[in-house]
Amino acid sequence: MSASLSHADARAVLDAGLAHAAEIGQPMNVAVVDDGGHLVAFARMDGAIKASIDISTRKAVTSVLMAAPTAALTPLVQPGAELYGLEQTAGGMVAFGGGIPLVRDGVLVGAVGVSAGSVEQDVSVAEAAVAALPG
Amino acid sequence: MSASLSHADARAVLDAGLAHAAEIGQPMNVAVVDDGGHLVAFARMDGAIKASIDISTRKAVTSVLMAAPTAALTPLVQPGAELYGLEQTAGGMVAFGGGIPLVRDGVLVGAVGVSAGSVEQDVSVAEAAVAALPG
Amino acid sequence: MSASLSHADARAVLDAGLAHAAEIGQPMNVAVVDDGGHLVAFARMDGAIKASIDISTRKAVTSVLMAAPTAALTPLVQPGAELYGLEQTAGGMVAFGGGIPLVRDGVLVGAVGVSAGSVEQDVSVAEAAVAALPG
Amino acid sequence: MSASLSHADARAVLDAGLAHAAEIGQPMNVAVVDDGGHLVAFARMDGAIKASIDISTRKAVTSVLMAAPTAALTPLVQPGAELYGLEQTAGGMVAFGGGIPLVRDGVLVGAVGVSAGSVEQDVSVAEAAVAALPG
Repeated sequence: MSASLSHADARAVLDAGLAHAAEIGQPMNVAVVDDGGHLVAFARMDGAIKASIDISTRKAVTSVLMAAPTAALTPLVQPGAELYGLEQTAGGMVAFGGGIPLVRDGVLVGAVGVSAGSVEQDVSVAEAAVAALPG
Repeated sequence: MSASLSHADARAVLDAGLAHAAEIGQPMNVAVVDDGGHLVAFARMDGAIKASIDISTRKAVTSVLMAAPTAALTPLVQPGAELYGLEQTAGGMVAFGGGIPLVRDGVLVGAVGVSAGSVEQDVSVAEAAVAALPG
Repeated sequence: MSASLSHADARAVLDAGLAHAAEIGQPMNVAVVDDGGHLVAFARMDGAIKASIDISTRKAVTSVLMAAPTAALTPLVQPGAELYGLEQTAGGMVAFGGGIPLVRDGVLVGAVGVSAGSVEQDVSVAEAAVAALPG
Repeated sequence: MSASLSHADARAVLDAGLAHAAEIGQPMNVAVVDDGGHLVAFARMDGAIKASIDISTRKAVTSVLMAAPTAALTPLVQPGAELYGLEQTAGGMVAFGGGIPLVRDGVLVGAVGVSAGSVEQDVSVAEAAVAALPG
């Protein structure tokens, strides 16, 4: 049971992200996906840019597909680096920060993706969201 | 202000849909979009089929793009009927029930889409969701 | 552990499908996906048509997304039926027989999709494949 | 007969790749395609990342379409180099190592693509796979 991400889990993660975004005064899009990259919960705050609906969701999906935070991919996809061009695979991935895996008892159960602020803000909201995953 | 759909509005609509789905014992996907068809809130209940993530969202988008409930489209897209093939336009639309526009003071402000049950169940949950739109 | 589909599980399912296809003398494409619809094992036998690479995989994905055999969808998507147009959602689904969920201990762990013969042959090979899922 | 890639050939190539991946302790996705770039055999090992389902297949397809190992493309697609932007053609190609053509008697009969480890690991598994092509 604890091996899969429930809707209640996803809502807790989502709401923690929204609360932190409100605290820092930056409207955000927050997406929570399961371990297959399928959407479980999503919210767009008032004033958050619309491009980030897709970007936040794609960050979450990327984190699941790569089993890594999207920020870890940034150096790898630069010109000359090992995975240059990676973003154009697997249906389109995002290689800048804001996507973080959700891990419980060592098992990847999903991911959260945040977008609409600076990358630093997106990452801080994603970290707050991930920290709220019920045990 | 009341002319546009806030995140709080969308959450109220979403949660009313989820509550009704729980009442009738049918896990659902519920999507709420704004008047541009862009996602504002989404939830997938435990056990709801994954195909309906896309179908619920697409029903909501279709309702905005057509300014009509998706159930109204069903007779129009049958072989021989006036809009046969409509579903293949506009990026892909859905012509069976479960998408309903959100209207406030006579203005279309968005739509809700529900999927994972029978069409009758989907429509009843969408109606419960729409009825919860704050005035 | 038994809740997820291992590569060994998928290979057992695949090879049982290939063996049955050889028995009935019909070259087939056989795809095995996990519970997120992600490919785990695939084989195309000599002489099997190439269109069925996609069709077999899509049947398996459809079975996961709909949590149902694709044959069960056939009556539902006909003109005038409840889900007319369903195939055009969720990235493209297939609504004729040959996709069957893999279920272990009551939990959907993936699906198999078979294509290249008649629908009756595809279903019989998919049934043989599913029956080989290790317990 | 020896001019085309049989399923038995593809399985031999696939299994040699899987064996080498197990030896080096890196779970991999391995795809084998024919000379038209159509999938013949595929396997995802337990723990291999899901993004690499697409990447491994795309590496194999790229190797067939370019008649070259994907590692040979890496310098050519960098900013300022001759084929900058190549990856965005032909339906999406991959220009980092792990795809290698299968050649028999001087004739290109297909390709193998490997992904989920470092590029160096991917290449070493692809080389082990290619070496197993029956004569």
